[in-house]
Order: sequence, then C-alpha cells, then structure tokens
Amino acid sequence: MNFRAYFDRRVRMIDEALESYFPEERHQPYSLFRSMRYSLLNGGKRIRPLLAIASAEAVGGRAEAALPFACAIELIHTYSLIHDDLPAMDNDRLRRGKPTNHLVFGEAQAILAGDALLTEAFRLMSQARKVRGITPKRVLMVINVIAEAAGAYGMVGGQVADMEAEGQTPNLPMVEFIHVRKTGALILAAVRSGAMLAGARPSALRCLSRYGEYLGLAFQVVDDVLDAQGAVEQTGKEGGGDVRNRKATYAAVLGPAVAKQRALALAEDALEQIKGFGKRAEPLREIVRSVIGRMEA
Amino acid sequence: MNFRAYFDRRVRMIDEALESYFPEERHQPYSLFRSMRYSLLNGGKRIRPLLAIASAEAVGGRAEAALPFACAIELIHTYSLIHDDLPAMDNDRLRRGKPTNHLVFGEAQAILAGDALLTEAFRLMSQARKVRGITPKRVLMVINVIAEAAGAYGMVGGQVADMEAEGQTPNLPMVEFIHVRKTGALILAAVRSGAMLAGARPSALRCLSRYGEYLGLAFQVVDDVLDAQGAVEQTGKEGGGDVRNRKATYAAVLGPAVAKQRALALAEDALEQIKGFGKRAEPLREIVRSVIGRMEA
Repeated sequence: MNFRAYFDRRVRMIDEALESYFPEERHQPYSLFRSMRYSLLNGGKRIRPLLAIASAEAVGGRAEAALPFACAIELIHTYSLIHDDLPAMDNDRLRRGKPTNHLVFGEAQAILAGDALLTEAFRLMSQARKVRGITPKRVLMVINVIAEAAGAYGMVGGQVADMEAEGQTPNLPMVEFIHVRKTGALILAAVRSGAMLAGARPSALRCLSRYGEYLGLAFQVVDDVLDAQGAVEQTGKEGGGDVRNRKATYAAVLGPAVAKQRALALAEDALEQIKGFGKRAEPLREIVRSVIGRMEA
Repeated sequence: MNFRAYFDRRVRMIDEALESYFPEERHQPYSLFRSMRYSLLNGGKRIRPLLAIASAEAVGGRAEAALPFACAIELIHTYSLIHDDLPAMDNDRLRRGKPTNHLVFGEAQAILAGDALLTEAFRLMSQARKVRGITPKRVLMVINVIAEAAGAYGMVGGQVADMEAEGQTPNLPMVEFIHVRKTGALILAAVRSGAMLAGARPSALRCLSRYGEYLGLAFQVVDDVLDAQGAVEQTGKEGGGDVRNRKATYAAVLGPAVAKQRALALAEDALEQIKGFGKRAEPLREIVRSVIGRMEA
C-alpha cells in the first residue's frame, strides 16, 4: 500500500470539505469567518479526521459517509486549540508555526471563533441526516459519542484538571486522568465515530475502541516527550512550554526515557487490537507508526 | 388561566431537570461542574425554555417532550452570558445581581465552563432519542435549528457584529443585523423547537416562527430601553453599560421614547400571529405581555 498517496488523497478530501463549509468572504460578519478559517485551514495534519475515515474503511465503510463527522471533529479540535492558546489559559504565541489566533484577531474574536467552530461542528453533524445510507438514529448516536468526548466529561474536563494540576507535584493517576480526557477522548471518539458510521459489529467496535484508547494515550505521551526535548520543529510550538508552565506530563512523572518506552508499549497495544483486521486496517496501523515516528525524527 | 401557577410549575420543571443533569459534586473535576452550576442554577427567568415548552403546548404537544431541548437552549444561553461577560468582551462584573462567573472562578475556568455548557447542550439533545414519541429524524432537525441559531450564522455572528459596531455611529440596519442574531435567533429557535417537537403543521410552524421573530426583537428593544434608563434592578446588570461601551442599540438609534413605541408595536405583531391558536397559546401571549411589562415596572 502506498501510504503517502492514500493519506494525501484523504487529507485533500478533508481540506476540500472544510473549505467548502466555510468559503471565504461569503457570509457576514467576515472577520468571524476569517478568524475561523485562519485556524481551521492551516495545513494541519488532520489526524483526528483521518482516524475517523480510516476507521470507517477498516470495517468496510466508505470515506464519504464519515467525512462530515470527521470534519466536525477537526472543528472541535481547532476550537480547543484556539481557546487553549488564550492569554487566560496557556498564553501561547505560536501554533503550527504561526501566530496564535488571538494574536492576529484579538482575544474577544478568538474566544468567539472558538465558540462558533464548536457550534458549527454540531450543525454539520446534524445535517448529515442527508448522507446516503446513514440512519438518523446512527447520526444521533455518533453526535452523542462526540459531544461526550468533547465536553465536561471529556476534553474540557481534562483541560480543567490540567490547569488545576499546575504547580502541584504531578503523579501518574493525575496525569492519566488529564490525558485520557484532554487528548485521548476526542481521538477515541474519532475512531469510534468512523466505525459506528460504517456499521461496525459490536466485536469490531470494541477492538477499535481499545485501539483508539491506546493510540490516544500514545499520542499524548509522544507529545510530552517531544515538548520535554524542546523540539519546536516537531510540535510547531515553542519548546519546553510544559516545563515552563509546570504541566502534569508523562515526561515529568516518568522521565523522558521511560515515557518514551511507555509510548512504544502503548503503540504495540494499539496495533495488537487490530491484528485481525487484515489489509483494510493498514492506514490505522500506519497512523500508529507515524505517531511513534515523531519521536525518532 | 392562572399564569403565575402555570409558569411556576414550568420553571420548577426546568430547574429540576437542569439540576438533575448536573448534580453537585458528582463528577470530577468538581470545580468545573461548580462553575457551570453557578451560572446555570441561579434563579434565571428561563424565558427561552419556557418558550420552547409553551410553543409545544400551543400546538397540543406535551411539556415533557420539549424539556431536554428547552434545557439545552438554556445551557447555550448561559454559556453565551458567561463568555459575553469576560474581560476581553463586555468585562461585566454583575449578572442577575451576582458577581460574574470569571470573577468567582477566574477567567480560564469561565471560558471552559462556557465551552462545557455549550457542548453539554448538544449531548443532552443527542440523548433525547430516548424520549417517547419523538423520532430521531425530528431530533436531528431540532438540533440543526438550534445549532444554526447559536453559531456563526446566529448568536455568535451577532456578538461579533456587535463588537465591531462599538465606537461606530450606529444605524438601524446595523442594529437589526446584530439583534436578529444576537438575541433574536435563539429565542426564535426556542419557539420553533417546541413547535417542531410537538409535530406542528407547516402553517402553524410558520405562524409560530413569525411570533418568535417579533418577540425576539421586542425582547431586545426592551432590554435596550431598560439599559438606557439604567435600571439595575430590572436587568440585574450595572445600568448604562451599553452607553458606556457605546453599543449599537435601538435606544441609541431611535431614542428611548421611539424605541419603546417600537417594542410595543413588535409585541402587537407577535400577538397577531397566534390569534388563531385559542386558549392553548395563552402562555405564549402572557410571555409577550410580561416582556413588555418590564418597561412599565
């Protein structure tokens, strides 16, 4: 399988869909749509939407069926980055190598662009009742999975726990509570959504869910390791931010070397779950390898 | 009809439902749920959820069917107040007579409490597939109506336009663009949701939609008039804030006296739309009268 060509095609599909949802200078107020587009259409790696699509394909579904939900998840991810970067939160100045949203558009506009992206994610999904072959009941179940992963019981809860942990001496249960929610939940929801939309059987859905859990944790451990190494070219952020802000990270608790071993073990666990899925799951396997590969680069 | 008893019962129903969705100290992180509850359970008048329920009842539906959606709309309304009050936005210190969320919980927590309330609104609605007699298709249509009213094409768009208008000389089209979105859209969506959930016929839905449009505008004009009069006891905010911030308001464009006449005319228009609805629409009529009544108090 030519992964490069496969992922290029899928990323182009996602980017074109995102662009079509928010065309330039079509709706007023223009400044709102400009600030939403600024953070949304910036050459992101689209890992979450890719996961949703690859997960649908791994159980025999079509990419097109998962596309609106894949995009909605990317909208939610983007809003969370905009809000995380705010002065009241992480006060970050760089994101994917560009000035953060609030530095370009001002703090108020950045808050509102985030609010709008989050809301539009649900609007997009609620319109997916028109996608052929997906029942409204299934759409609602997927919206539920994504909302639960994004809200107080998932991503936002993780973000609050992360803030509260600042300045405290981190321990492993604390770090896991945070990361399962802050990063893991939405990655897991992406994998689950794709599988559910493709009509995965319960046993396949269970395997893919565990795959998503392990991958989500691996993803965050790798991020922690990279931040600890201060690799600005890998993360597109200013390096060492976590250390500077005394964040509860795997690297802080385990040390970078053990954290790296943990990431590799989690990746193995993730791959193990989809051993029986055959060739159709190759993109899911390649995503695991590429996440781990960031540490080797 | 004993309106006092009717509205008391309905408000109690709404408050109990909201309380049941977010029980105290049940989930971690506690501080997040505390800050969500602080702004959500504060004795608000619940006009939007009341409208959704009264609208369902006006076409023969049951209050219970509209309840989860009515509550979701109140969550969305509450999140918008928390974010509007932030230092980067209106920088308000009082809301319903109490310190604003960010003064109590800090700015970061207030941003996240708003994000969580918005997300949980959609989670609640996506679970309403379990409500008896409502098809998943109808639930999706209502989610779509509410998301469109709340997002970039509705409330958030209005908020951005409002900010951009600050310091400019306001004119009537500008003020209407802002208020149709900022306040009107969610009020209209509440009325439409209730009617749709109750299975209103197209002609009834059209009448109720126009009712909702006129009421939404009347509501905002009254708010502008009250703010211009600096009536802190009426709005629970510090009076004159709009003037202080040079906001685009009806009072600023038309003068308070003409704005007041406009509110009365809009109220008449709203009542006209539901003339043929009989006794079941009495609560909807009473809501119009009570909105207008705020100016007389």
